[in-house]
Amino acid sequence: MSRSHEPATRVAGADLQTFMERALARCEADEASCRAVARALVTASRMGTDSHGLRLLPHYVRAVQGGRINPRPAMRFTRRLPGTGYLDADDGFGHLAGFTAIEHAISMAEEIGIGAVAVGRSSHFGAAGCYALEAAQRGYVGLSVCNADALVSLHHGQGPFYGTNPIAFAAPVPNQPPYLLDMATSSIPWNRVKQYAAIGRELPPDVVVDRQGNLTTDASQAVSLLPLGGADFGFKGAGLAGMVEVLSATLTGMIHGFRMLPMSGEDMSTPRGVGHFFLVMRPDAFVERDIFDRGMLDYLEDLRAQPALEGREVLAPGDREWRCQARRDAEGIPLDSANVVAYAELAEELAMPALS
Amino acid sequence: MSRSHEPATRVAGADLQTFMERALARCEADEASCRAVARALVTASRMGTDSHGLRLLPHYVRAVQGGRINPRPAMRFTRRLPGTGYLDADDGFGHLAGFTAIEHAISMAEEIGIGAVAVGRSSHFGAAGCYALEAAQRGYVGLSVCNADALVSLHHGQGPFYGTNPIAFAAPVPNQPPYLLDMATSSIPWNRVKQYAAIGRELPPDVVVDRQGNLTTDASQAVSLLPLGGADFGFKGAGLAGMVEVLSATLTGMIHGFRMLPMSGEDMSTPRGVGHFFLVMRPDAFVERDIFDRGMLDYLEDLRAQPALEGREVLAPGDREWRCQARRDAEGIPLDSANVVAYAELAEELAMPALS
Repeated sequence: MSRSHEPATRVAGADLQTFMERALARCEADEASCRAVARALVTASRMGTDSHGLRLLPHYVRAVQGGRINPRPAMRFTRRLPGTGYLDADDGFGHLAGFTAIEHAISMAEEIGIGAVAVGRSSHFGAAGCYALEAAQRGYVGLSVCNADALVSLHHGQGPFYGTNPIAFAAPVPNQPPYLLDMATSSIPWNRVKQYAAIGRELPPDVVVDRQGNLTTDASQAVSLLPLGGADFGFKGAGLAGMVEVLSATLTGMIHGFRMLPMSGEDMSTPRGVGHFFLVMRPDAFVERDIFDRGMLDYLEDLRAQPALEGREVLAPGDREWRCQARRDAEGIPLDSANVVAYAELAEELAMPALS
Repeated sequence: MSRSHEPATRVAGADLQTFMERALARCEADEASCRAVARALVTASRMGTDSHGLRLLPHYVRAVQGGRINPRPAMRFTRRLPGTGYLDADDGFGHLAGFTAIEHAISMAEEIGIGAVAVGRSSHFGAAGCYALEAAQRGYVGLSVCNADALVSLHHGQGPFYGTNPIAFAAPVPNQPPYLLDMATSSIPWNRVKQYAAIGRELPPDVVVDRQGNLTTDASQAVSLLPLGGADFGFKGAGLAGMVEVLSATLTGMIHGFRMLPMSGEDMSTPRGVGHFFLVMRPDAFVERDIFDRGMLDYLEDLRAQPALEGREVLAPGDREWRCQARRDAEGIPLDSANVVAYAELAEELAMPALS
């Protein structure tokens, strides 16, 4: 672990990956689970998606130690029709379920142009973008969505009903990193509310409500996130969360988010029944590949050439992430002081070498 | 045409449909085109989606008379792989392209569980919801998206880049009308800006920008819509618009919205090269149908039982539309005074019986 001129401790992605795999192996996780979780968390941390990166490892260790997550799942894939299938994740890690499902979706898409996999009996899968990205890096268009426990209000509702139900979409771009959208259907994540409450910082207007369902900027009073669009246009964000719910819960036969045990709840022994949904398409199943490739390049060239507001920059989905990844690959991935402590404690508890 | 106690003139859906079909037939449109356009517009007007309903007929008549839209297209569908296909719409009406494409997607989904159709060389297709709805009414999950000419800013961008690029998603619900989300990826439609400018009404904050890219609530100063999420979180709305652009333009080999001739522009003779994308899935290609059905019912029951803000109501996607449809089916579809005049002029110009 080397120190840069910035206050954060920095660590190489490969070292982080090794540490994570070892830590999970100490919890009896099988090799495939260790690899999948570490890969998803390192991918997210390299891209700067810190909320879904390395900070989650201690949580996953608790969940697998408590029995909520099955460390050695026997995941079963059933190809129900030529373009569709169901993956029973056997209460294993969502990351292994995600990479397994996207692999099946890619293989169906390769054969018949499109493939979709619904995943049931799964758990938190980290950043939704990891799985759509895997498809795009292999030359396909990918979509991944997931439901979650209730943190987000309905439009005109008082308290939380939906999870932050993310939508991730990725597409290949010739000689460039993929096009990558990975967004929660709320304006901000719950994690930010907790951070702001801890330091007494004011939230932006129109993103959270208090116990009575009224808008507040006081993070300590927040009990529910508003859907994207806020108090006036939140029917759109809530509608998108609903689409994700239908795909991730109804189409997988799982419980919907409102009935789901909270990810950060006390109960670390009961599987939560999370569902995911993945879609993969071959671009040349629709148009000739060179036309698709040229179209992506022309569109992104026009997009990046748009005049920006003063002091601002216009970016394509993914641009910020790839820039961060290049920087973190060169300088290392930063750990804040809380994570330095958490990782040191984890090493001690699991009687394994510290992250270095 | 009967007058209710409300100021609006009201007309029965069936009479409206007949008038529309006749008007388009007078413009040499073939029977399939006449039927498809009228069906899409009446469906939207019955549901209360007035921006995409009857008011569009005079526009379509001009577009087909001017040669922008081909009244007798030879649309060609190619099933490129078992789950995917391409529909060349031959510059015909987008509505005919939409119903044709969703039919092919349904038939592929029936056979292999899922079907997707990219449509190129098309035109404005009215409300995206019509086509997703058609799938849901037949028992499938449906998605339809479409790109459009530039009206919406990029996040941190100065002027318009994306169209209002709508996303429509529908799913069947046992013994209830379908679940239906149909939303533009901007907060408000451009049409509303024009209406508010005409009557000097102030817009809500955070939905439009002026020539310099600064926020304004003065509709007469608006030159671009903000993406859903507004000035702070518009990267999400713009990201969704981008996903729609990739599906509707890149995957169809069409021009992206920024390069597209404006729908409301002077040029009524040049085809615009609009693209659409449709996806259909069989629920029982993922889980047993009774599990899916029970899941939809349980989810919607919980949703509709959520406590609402005082004086407000919690609604599922589509609830508002089905309520409006029931009312309009009973009372008739309202025409405001501008549409009464426009329809009378149309009847005269086309030498056909007035709407009655």
